[in-house]
Amino acid sequence: MSGNTFGHLFRVTSFGESHGAAIGCVIDGVPPCLPLTEADIQVYLDRRRPGQSRHTTQRREPDRVQILSGVFEGWTTGAPLALTIVNEDARSKDYSAIKDVFRPGHADYTYWQKYGIRDYRGGGRSSARETAMRVAAGAVARKVLGAEVSIRGALVQMGPHAVDRGRWDWEAVQQNPLMCPDPDAVPVWEAFLDSIRKTSSSTGGVIEVVASGVPAGLGAPTFDRLDADLAKAMISIPAAKGVEIGTGFAAAAMTGPEHNDAMRMQDGRVTFLSNHAGGVLGGISTGQDVVVRLAIKPTSSVATPQPSVDIHGHEVQVATHGRHDPCVAIRGVPVAEAMMALVLADHLLRHRAQCGGG
Amino acid sequence: MSGNTFGHLFRVTSFGESHGAAIGCVIDGVPPCLPLTEADIQVYLDRRRPGQSRHTTQRREPDRVQILSGVFEGWTTGAPLALTIVNEDARSKDYSAIKDVFRPGHADYTYWQKYGIRDYRGGGRSSARETAMRVAAGAVARKVLGAEVSIRGALVQMGPHAVDRGRWDWEAVQQNPLMCPDPDAVPVWEAFLDSIRKTSSSTGGVIEVVASGVPAGLGAPTFDRLDADLAKAMISIPAAKGVEIGTGFAAAAMTGPEHNDAMRMQDGRVTFLSNHAGGVLGGISTGQDVVVRLAIKPTSSVATPQPSVDIHGHEVQVATHGRHDPCVAIRGVPVAEAMMALVLADHLLRHRAQCGGG
Amino acid sequence: MSGNTFGHLFRVTSFGESHGAAIGCVIDGVPPCLPLTEADIQVYLDRRRPGQSRHTTQRREPDRVQILSGVFEGWTTGAPLALTIVNEDARSKDYSAIKDVFRPGHADYTYWQKYGIRDYRGGGRSSARETAMRVAAGAVARKVLGAEVSIRGALVQMGPHAVDRGRWDWEAVQQNPLMCPDPDAVPVWEAFLDSIRKTSSSTGGVIEVVASGVPAGLGAPTFDRLDADLAKAMISIPAAKGVEIGTGFAAAAMTGPEHNDAMRMQDGRVTFLSNHAGGVLGGISTGQDVVVRLAIKPTSSVATPQPSVDIHGHEVQVATHGRHDPCVAIRGVPVAEAMMALVLADHLLRHRAQCGGG
Amino acid sequence: MSGNTFGHLFRVTSFGESHGAAIGCVIDGVPPCLPLTEADIQVYLDRRRPGQSRHTTQRREPDRVQILSGVFEGWTTGAPLALTIVNEDARSKDYSAIKDVFRPGHADYTYWQKYGIRDYRGGGRSSARETAMRVAAGAVARKVLGAEVSIRGALVQMGPHAVDRGRWDWEAVQQNPLMCPDPDAVPVWEAFLDSIRKTSSSTGGVIEVVASGVPAGLGAPTFDRLDADLAKAMISIPAAKGVEIGTGFAAAAMTGPEHNDAMRMQDGRVTFLSNHAGGVLGGISTGQDVVVRLAIKPTSSVATPQPSVDIHGHEVQVATHGRHDPCVAIRGVPVAEAMMALVLADHLLRHRAQCGGG
Repeated sequence: MSGNTFGHLFRVTSFGESHGAAIGCVIDGVPPCLPLTEADIQVYLDRRRPGQSRHTTQRREPDRVQILSGVFEGWTTGAPLALTIVNEDARSKDYSAIKDVFRPGHADYTYWQKYGIRDYRGGGRSSARETAMRVAAGAVARKVLGAEVSIRGALVQMGPHAVDRGRWDWEAVQQNPLMCPDPDAVPVWEAFLDSIRKTSSSTGGVIEVVASGVPAGLGAPTFDRLDADLAKAMISIPAAKGVEIGTGFAAAAMTGPEHNDAMRMQDGRVTFLSNHAGGVLGGISTGQDVVVRLAIKPTSSVATPQPSVDIHGHEVQVATHGRHDPCVAIRGVPVAEAMMALVLADHLLRHRAQCGGG
Repeated sequence: MSGNTFGHLFRVTSFGESHGAAIGCVIDGVPPCLPLTEADIQVYLDRRRPGQSRHTTQRREPDRVQILSGVFEGWTTGAPLALTIVNEDARSKDYSAIKDVFRPGHADYTYWQKYGIRDYRGGGRSSARETAMRVAAGAVARKVLGAEVSIRGALVQMGPHAVDRGRWDWEAVQQNPLMCPDPDAVPVWEAFLDSIRKTSSSTGGVIEVVASGVPAGLGAPTFDRLDADLAKAMISIPAAKGVEIGTGFAAAAMTGPEHNDAMRMQDGRVTFLSNHAGGVLGGISTGQDVVVRLAIKPTSSVATPQPSVDIHGHEVQVATHGRHDPCVAIRGVPVAEAMMALVLADHLLRHRAQCGGG
Repeated sequence: MSGNTFGHLFRVTSFGESHGAAIGCVIDGVPPCLPLTEADIQVYLDRRRPGQSRHTTQRREPDRVQILSGVFEGWTTGAPLALTIVNEDARSKDYSAIKDVFRPGHADYTYWQKYGIRDYRGGGRSSARETAMRVAAGAVARKVLGAEVSIRGALVQMGPHAVDRGRWDWEAVQQNPLMCPDPDAVPVWEAFLDSIRKTSSSTGGVIEVVASGVPAGLGAPTFDRLDADLAKAMISIPAAKGVEIGTGFAAAAMTGPEHNDAMRMQDGRVTFLSNHAGGVLGGISTGQDVVVRLAIKPTSSVATPQPSVDIHGHEVQVATHGRHDPCVAIRGVPVAEAMMALVLADHLLRHRAQCGGG
Repeated sequence: MSGNTFGHLFRVTSFGESHGAAIGCVIDGVPPCLPLTEADIQVYLDRRRPGQSRHTTQRREPDRVQILSGVFEGWTTGAPLALTIVNEDARSKDYSAIKDVFRPGHADYTYWQKYGIRDYRGGGRSSARETAMRVAAGAVARKVLGAEVSIRGALVQMGPHAVDRGRWDWEAVQQNPLMCPDPDAVPVWEAFLDSIRKTSSSTGGVIEVVASGVPAGLGAPTFDRLDADLAKAMISIPAAKGVEIGTGFAAAAMTGPEHNDAMRMQDGRVTFLSNHAGGVLGGISTGQDVVVRLAIKPTSSVATPQPSVDIHGHEVQVATHGRHDPCVAIRGVPVAEAMMALVLADHLLRHRAQCGGG
């Protein structure tokens, strides 16, 4: 129960270290007879891949996914899918500088406390490199959800700079390297990021993910609520520190009549007049857009020296040089989308198990 | 996989409807030889019990817990604990007014969509009444954690009114019916609540829970991070819409050097100079206080009529009269504390399983 | 992970000690909109109830089941079902004779080794009394399976006396108190049992359970095979020491051409010409009868004194007087049927989750 | 919940088809700081490897295991272990003969019924080739158990020929290619196997596995009994049709006083005078040898033509030519040992979680 598996029926088990031989995952519970190729997965990995603009790490990983099992002649068979990516740019560089040191903001200290051993090469298992497998698994989850469900994410705040939601344009997200839905914010963010990079600093951000076309009825009461599982999914992303469903923290300052989403009939169907709930009531989807936001802390690795200690109990100054994203929230967008897909696919199968249909 | 179980090794399975015969839970995995009596549990239930001030629902439930199994002569035996509370004030009142109606903000519509049937008496399974069992289970979890770990919660925002953290006083929380840690805020909140009640409205709030004395090393990498499981635990509380760990959403606007918690040696031990991380790095506890905040939406049940529909597709106006909390966040405090206890107890056992010790 | 839960989607969590306040279980994952009353469950409990003939224990328990949750107006709601039976005949007798003693063949010694504490009243948690809840849960599982699936059990061997399979008569099973399918064997068994009882001894037996109408396709490859889950289910019954699927151990002495079940077309459908496989190939149901046998050891409690030790390390002689079944295999028949139902219901939901349909 | 994961805390997830790119597994929950190399695993794989005598399949697979993650500088890190074996002898032969045909005794028909699709190359996922990963995972489980626990297996019956238990010699098992503990039986078995092979037939067998040094207290009451989990583990091995714990089916014909294992004190410690229980009472280990036997059916693939049908509903005769073991029970011995190791390692961690210690 070491926590490397996500989901109950659509079940992803992840493995691999930053500088090991490979990273990968096994997906059990994939329905049979879905069309699936490596290209279907690669397209999502390419969106997360580093080194695509000056704003992300310059580590060069083609991140080429390979399907080892579970697909026969282009169709899923119901057997577990194994996906791997070979670590190609795992430089055999000299890690002696950080070998014995706990980098502030990283998991170095806690892994050491927990396990008494640590693969210090590039963070080992705690590296965000594992998120590539989330994206890969998310691509498979989208197949399970089908074309009716669309999942899209965007960066809605970088450092202190939030987007103007009135200018929201989903098309724009694909057209700028910052995954920003507000075209006017892009140059502001780019200038901000350049200043961050110049000062050897880093910044945080807020990601929003929206799932449309989710049928009403997904989720479960009590503990495994759809929103609870989404919250877990999002906070499990490295560097995530907060999550909101619908209006989120703003709901605390609202009144019931303001927050409750009124219902009317429209063309013979139930319609909600607002979506403060973020598409979930009582832990179960309403059929409206499922809306989640998550806060990403600033990248922990910065070249600015910081006070820390080492494994021998000596006080040290740590400056982390090398290839790092100044704002990991950017590449976090496809990861957050993938986690949304994993939760929805799992709950789709869970719903079908208990309530039938499909 | 209907989601009424929480935890993996310290494992709580909950049951019961608002107006059924009883609510209860089974806790499996309780370590043997812990001293436990019904009084140990009752003290926490009493803090959550309704009808203790004019600010909470006037439903009269003694909420008397009974231990049906798993304890022998005052000690846990390792066998599953079953706890029940008989529903005494389950008035056999006339529910015909809401029988066919979907109350806005409630789970009525989603349960109907999911199950095609619904126990409409007081919300049935979707009633927050189930949270009594979370509190009961939390009391047992505290036994597992031992006296070194203290878990305390407070309401830090009511509607738009936040506490002044400079005046924080844990003692005060126990001395006012609003669980407010800022004595000066209490009269402001009381006046605000009275106005809310007079206008047949409701309000939200923000709860903060702090666990002290948590040993470093609890949690797991990748998916079952300590903070991810806390996020799930908190969002699984009815009406929760957002959760933060440590600095939470504020982290998005910080730089790395600001956010990273510096480490120094003090009296031969590692000490952190701040706690932006909220006691968790890489999903594993640091030994600092574990700090979580959650946003609670305003009570959905209000006497103000609201537009909705019924199961026959007719548009209706719904006003929910009766006994309701104007701000469920107040009674949410002991529930959030309990969820913190459940997560920590589970991860304590998980840690012991994999890494030994204790 | 203390092992009191069975199943993944149709999920039974059991609790209660022999002489505690009550025994019970929670069943999560029950599909909604199934008709269910306490009478539907009671009929199966009555078959297992002690004291119905001179051949079973004279403990007087009406074993009256109560549904505490999950049913509304006679229909399941999708919420967890809680079932309880109050222990009425939990005599407050003097247990000082066995308090410190490890009864041979019982779990006294192992519970003591594991937990360091033990509820010695009637075996506590290790008492076969918990099997009442298996039978209760099995009744609900049958509802999930529907009327097409029939599950029947019989005792096929008592002590050294096996039935003549050529005289197999399912009707007979209901007509004798020994659950024997061979009418000619009944008097032989009765005489044998009387001699066993007179010598203060006990005997074992072999149970066979057959499920008819199971659709092809239930089960899963690799670890969670339908037959593997059945094996676990059966061996989890107290006193079970062996389990066979289809031809079972006899298969070891057969050749492939003998054992392989040939397939032919009949009325346009695939038909098997034999059923050595016991209805399972590759862990997945074939559509033939699912056939399982399990060996039950002789009742451990006997009035004959036996050498043992106590918790202080003293050698003692233990004779267990009181109300005991001379052959627990008899009352094991409805328990084994119930376990078959639990496994099939769980796999039905699992199949529906992954492969759809229904 | 497709059933490719085994264990709860020591948790093996398996993947791969007979003729796919690779087979492999991920092991989550491995305790940190255990020494582990590929050679530690390879030694067990070599025992299972085909083609080592004339009595097993001539498929030539070096079965060279690779550790992709979870080990750093020769020590486990607590991160998930990924193990893979590349399929080297996956001949691109012509499978058109069996492509549309259901081979009797195989999973062809049931996979087709369940999934509607089937990787027919060498049985695909249903091939016993997956058992190589069980053996690999078992080698890691042995490391968790430590040197005090020894797990040994032997073939105790081949076809109708059982060993003479009076001649039992564990050394002999390693010295003959049939894993037979009775040296005098070896020539008899070899002659029998040759005759089986000459008649294009196959035979079954019975495997016995004994674990010594297992501490008292492992296991759990009710459902997840140590013996129940062993039964599931053993029946999950391809071709297994029966399982016994201790005296097994013979217990049915015994009396309580015969079967109960008497206890005495010896050198200040509790000692059992016999082991009919097979080392498990009430689902929990006694500290005696844990003894399990399993029946393996004759190999389904035989060159003798057999009546069957194809996916188009035509009646056909199927003869399976090629490389097959005449008695899969031989190579099943290391697989059964591995499953014993998996169950014990999982329960060791489970015990430690709930009851502490170590």
